[in-house]
Amino acid sequence: MSYQRLHQQLHFIFEIDKLKTIVRQSSLFKSDRRENDAEHSWHLAMMALVLTEHADHSIDVARVLKMVLIHDLVEIDAGDIFLFDTQKDHNNTEKEMLAAQRIFRLLPKDQATEFINLWIEFEEGETNDARFAKAIDRLHPALQNLSNNGGTWAKFEIDLATVLDKLQPIKKGSVTLWEYVENQIKKLPKDLT
Amino acid sequence: MSYQRLHQQLHFIFEIDKLKTIVRQSSLFKSDRRENDAEHSWHLAMMALVLTEHADHSIDVARVLKMVLIHDLVEIDAGDIFLFDTQKDHNNTEKEMLAAQRIFRLLPKDQATEFINLWIEFEEGETNDARFAKAIDRLHPALQNLSNNGGTWAKFEIDLATVLDKLQPIKKGSVTLWEYVENQIKKLPKDLT
Repeated sequence: MSYQRLHQQLHFIFEIDKLKTIVRQSSLFKSDRRENDAEHSWHLAMMALVLTEHADHSIDVARVLKMVLIHDLVEIDAGDIFLFDTQKDHNNTEKEMLAAQRIFRLLPKDQATEFINLWIEFEEGETNDARFAKAIDRLHPALQNLSNNGGTWAKFEIDLATVLDKLQPIKKGSVTLWEYVENQIKKLPKDLT
Repeated sequence: MSYQRLHQQLHFIFEIDKLKTIVRQSSLFKSDRRENDAEHSWHLAMMALVLTEHADHSIDVARVLKMVLIHDLVEIDAGDIFLFDTQKDHNNTEKEMLAAQRIFRLLPKDQATEFINLWIEFEEGETNDARFAKAIDRLHPALQNLSNNGGTWAKFEIDLATVLDKLQPIKKGSVTLWEYVENQIKKLPKDLT
């Protein structure tokens, strides 16, 4: 057989190892050790599996898993942008699109196209699957901050209204998860947000 | 609504954060930085997605993803056992079963049962899904060692026959992946294995 497809796939698998070196602002639960994008992506996949029943709309868990597993790969080239960074546009920037093209196109064409489309769907956040994936992606660092006495919210002195505003994607995917996290945030001491 | 199920699920999500602190013997590609179980699990999920077409038997990718995402959670209690450790039994030990019971039972009963059964299926390695999941689990550190001039094989002076013997689960899941990795290993300089 031809190993051409396999070689392309292994090249991709090798390249995405770099996700483990992209460090996020958020720390592990009850810890000051900041986590990397690969750890974050694994945790999102576990959350998507365990919290499926709280999605407000019918979802395809396998597609949500794929989305959360690949959603941060563009950061290998484009870097992690902190959610509360006011200097940079966190939306689908040209830099991220170029990264998606470079990284996913290491794969055979059919797989590259599937992943690029899935990544765009996640970024746009309009389908049921993307809404739930985005809800989980916002919920994870919120839970980490809650366990760390406000975490990055406290560290960067983000006010309560801004925190709740930035977490709105949770509400778009799951009212239950939103109500839970909103209640928990409002219980934090006033000086933490 | 009752938040009982959600509280159990969040307790589990919080607990499994510890997977990020379980350090494996294997290092990242072309690196001496050892990786942790969460990073490894994420990479396996990506490999399961990308290499599906090389499975020798019909598989359900969503089930394989679930298996590889949860397969190492027992190591939170039982610790990582190096594949070539001759002092310890790497098979399904009582310690790992106790760990599975403790960790998965943090979840609501239906989810705990599903995950425990899936983990046992993975450990037994007899179904098509489990065979492919196990193949990927052995392939990953083999690729890492290949990129690191023999990596743990060289470090612990494992002979070639033992290396190939321990990697047999790859052959049980995919002849293509097995032939690729066997060829690559045989190309290593003699003093590395």
